[in-house]
Amino acid sequence: MINGSNKIGYQESSESTQVTYAFEATTLKTLPEAFHTATTKEVNTAVEKAKLAFGVYRKTSPRQRAHFLRLIADEIEALGSELIQRAMAESGLPEGRVTGERGRTTGQLRLFADLVEEGSWVDAVIDPAMPDRKPLPRLDIRRMLVPVGPVVVFTASNFPLAFSTAGGDTASALAAGNPVIIKAHESHLGTNELVATAILRAAEKSGMPDGVFSSLNSMGYEVGSQLVMHDDVASVAFTGSYRGGKALFDLAQKRKNPIPVFAEMGSINPVFVLPQAVQERGVALAQELAGSITLGVGQFCTNPGLIIAIDTPEARQFCEALAKAIETTQYGIMLNEGIRTNFEQKVRHLSSIDPVTLLGASLNEQLPHTVRATVATVSGSDFLEHPHLREEVFGPFSLVVLCADRLEMEAVATDLEGQLTATLMTGDDDDLYVGKLFDLLTQKVGRILFDGVPTGVEVGHAMHHGGPFPATTDSRFTSVGTKAILRFVRPVAYQRVPAALLPDALKDENPLGIWRKVNGIFTKDPL
Amino acid sequence: MINGSNKIGYQESSESTQVTYAFEATTLKTLPEAFHTATTKEVNTAVEKAKLAFGVYRKTSPRQRAHFLRLIADEIEALGSELIQRAMAESGLPEGRVTGERGRTTGQLRLFADLVEEGSWVDAVIDPAMPDRKPLPRLDIRRMLVPVGPVVVFTASNFPLAFSTAGGDTASALAAGNPVIIKAHESHLGTNELVATAILRAAEKSGMPDGVFSSLNSMGYEVGSQLVMHDDVASVAFTGSYRGGKALFDLAQKRKNPIPVFAEMGSINPVFVLPQAVQERGVALAQELAGSITLGVGQFCTNPGLIIAIDTPEARQFCEALAKAIETTQYGIMLNEGIRTNFEQKVRHLSSIDPVTLLGASLNEQLPHTVRATVATVSGSDFLEHPHLREEVFGPFSLVVLCADRLEMEAVATDLEGQLTATLMTGDDDDLYVGKLFDLLTQKVGRILFDGVPTGVEVGHAMHHGGPFPATTDSRFTSVGTKAILRFVRPVAYQRVPAALLPDALKDENPLGIWRKVNGIFTKDPL
Repeated sequence: MINGSNKIGYQESSESTQVTYAFEATTLKTLPEAFHTATTKEVNTAVEKAKLAFGVYRKTSPRQRAHFLRLIADEIEALGSELIQRAMAESGLPEGRVTGERGRTTGQLRLFADLVEEGSWVDAVIDPAMPDRKPLPRLDIRRMLVPVGPVVVFTASNFPLAFSTAGGDTASALAAGNPVIIKAHESHLGTNELVATAILRAAEKSGMPDGVFSSLNSMGYEVGSQLVMHDDVASVAFTGSYRGGKALFDLAQKRKNPIPVFAEMGSINPVFVLPQAVQERGVALAQELAGSITLGVGQFCTNPGLIIAIDTPEARQFCEALAKAIETTQYGIMLNEGIRTNFEQKVRHLSSIDPVTLLGASLNEQLPHTVRATVATVSGSDFLEHPHLREEVFGPFSLVVLCADRLEMEAVATDLEGQLTATLMTGDDDDLYVGKLFDLLTQKVGRILFDGVPTGVEVGHAMHHGGPFPATTDSRFTSVGTKAILRFVRPVAYQRVPAALLPDALKDENPLGIWRKVNGIFTKDPL
Repeated sequence: MINGSNKIGYQESSESTQVTYAFEATTLKTLPEAFHTATTKEVNTAVEKAKLAFGVYRKTSPRQRAHFLRLIADEIEALGSELIQRAMAESGLPEGRVTGERGRTTGQLRLFADLVEEGSWVDAVIDPAMPDRKPLPRLDIRRMLVPVGPVVVFTASNFPLAFSTAGGDTASALAAGNPVIIKAHESHLGTNELVATAILRAAEKSGMPDGVFSSLNSMGYEVGSQLVMHDDVASVAFTGSYRGGKALFDLAQKRKNPIPVFAEMGSINPVFVLPQAVQERGVALAQELAGSITLGVGQFCTNPGLIIAIDTPEARQFCEALAKAIETTQYGIMLNEGIRTNFEQKVRHLSSIDPVTLLGASLNEQLPHTVRATVATVSGSDFLEHPHLREEVFGPFSLVVLCADRLEMEAVATDLEGQLTATLMTGDDDDLYVGKLFDLLTQKVGRILFDGVPTGVEVGHAMHHGGPFPATTDSRFTSVGTKAILRFVRPVAYQRVPAALLPDALKDENPLGIWRKVNGIFTKDPL
């Protein structure tokens, strides 16, 4: 079933003799299929097809798009164990996690189908004519969000399904009415091809235009750069490293017509464990945090990489409990060799910084190609003096910062760069700390949470998974949850447009039955 | 009253000996006051004060902010004829226009006050906890838009009031909860100072923190560049030329932490005059368009710089009527010498391009420092061959493109770059043209309008004044209308945040009484 071809719309294409192979993450053994790197011609054809498809796809009805999205979910499920086995092999993730991620992926697709049918996301606003207004009459003006055009999605290494081929970026871009072109991640080329095939089957079954979806294989940066620089690409979504995301962002800003790059790039997700919380439930918190640090071998963008506490005897016990919990964890298979060696180098480097003390690391037998979950500690003043300690260590690592007092803890909070999340673990009497920290942190993060771990990002209406730079390149948008659709649209105002030409969402009679703002008031009523 | 100082929050400051003078637009005579260019230290102090003020201002209640905005409107009105006279002197605009623009400015401020009080703009979304959900319980998550931080506003040459010191950018940034720092335009330094003083009086009366508003004078690019590059500036709004806007955009993308620059840069606002419209009311349309072309001496961003028709005998009559209407217009005083010479050079250059034919120009006596409204014509095929003809000529100029047939007209539409507006002038039987053009143009513009001129931008809920690059740097946002507030905010998700800490907009009891989306349903009900 996997043949290593690029999918240029409904066409399979393997023009290049340059091929690359997928690896089995646990053994580093090469998997059999040769994946053909997309040629410049194939890249251009994919974008041209997407441009043509856009002309048709942007005019599909909400019901048609919802049907398409639900069919994708069905087709992914129909791949059955072949997909699960392949994703496990390529990612090294265990079956439970991969099955769960598939559920998240199909759930996401169905959620966007519901969103599109519910329809209020288009933010329809109608200011009807007021011919008698003084000093000037008001003309009929209506406004709604419309799709922007072909979207390029870079699949993420750490979520081979939920942030990849049919993940949140693809689901939201398709839901909005945009064709999608995938730049497949080298770490899960087979998984990508299986899911791409499922999407194309769904597209064919629902009569979607050729080019509404394409998937391109690549080695290195060339295919990605060509896509980002192509005149007819309208938007880009990326989840990965700061270096990768920032490079794509910079590239896109240099275009003749700059385009948005929504890059979600990394975060150390500080967790402030306040004194009363430490006293009341230090050991339990240590265990909860150890679970969060090692979840998915620490390869979550919301992994708690920084834990901040006041240096008390109880905090020292908390550190011991955390070390003990980490010591009992299994060695973990990382997503690929690059991520693994990067993790080991960074941990080694941080541990070598003089004031950093190792707290503990996994003591279980180290299998080949695995890493040891590790926790270390440093004083607040040393943390403030060493900017390197703010850098993300992608993987199962966390640094506990023990602060001399409340002011030093606030200084650490003040010192942080933009983050996806920040967490406050609070006890009954931590009010002295909470107000100021809440205020400081809210200005630096996309999501602030109390008394829970940051991993586990709910896919809902209220979720914001984003954050000020450098967590993302655009803090105004989320990559998780229904609001993710807002990345791939722009408003258009329709002034005195004849009824027959108005999009359904703006017609007097409200044929879609959606919530709209008419004369500044929310209503589902016709005009 | 005008003393040429910078306003660094509540402090007047004139540290530099480098001064610049305002000019009377009609005579080019220097006005008496010396305006002190802001020094680097003054720039930094303004931003530092804004940063500190943000800590307080972001937490003001909607009612407090609305009160502040209304007081600004009152204080602007209280400036009375001093403001009108000064704006007339510096801009060369007639009294009626300046008075009208003041009304637009104060109306805008009051509209944003209403918007802030109505409150639904924060897009509050609440997904309450579902402890019994399977397989995992849902945690309480709430989301709303929060202000981003200090906003720098570059005032526009062409609207000394409505797109300047207390214009739409300032009103929307303040309404959202952000401090504002003005980079005053050299063409109306005195007008700026008067309005800045009014804003500061309103700020003091309403107890706003020092630094919520500052205004800086400058010569050249230095002050603007320093502001855009300052680490603590969060966002930038600009209305002006492509060159200026793109330079600021590029600068901001090169920052260590890139920030958005909302630059509204220019547009030729194509007007398609369809055959039946020409036949039914060609002469009336010519007069209406001549009025739009010369409105404000053509210095509107929505000025119709391109008129496209099918080359028929009636279209030739339309051209004659347009030429005649233009010939009777008065010579116009332009906003400043730079704009005037630029206009004359561009018209001269375009007229020298071989296939371009002059249709007509103002025949009245040319007063000093004025320009002649001018219309010219070119064939569709020549237009398609000469890319220079797509460039904006800022001022009272329009080019009529006479196309051989419908396909050529569609080719012209396809060929256009991003625009603020496009207009279709239609007659009873133009259906053959309308569908395709509507479809093509909607993809290129921020506002599509039928049977009306693009000048006259309604300040309302449904307005979108923006458009794909190069019309603006960010097609997703508008600079006119209530949605302009969305430029200066970002979402934050609050997970399990204690009731006492939640912003009012997200509290269970809905104390602000605003529309919110709870469990995916719009409601004003408490939880």
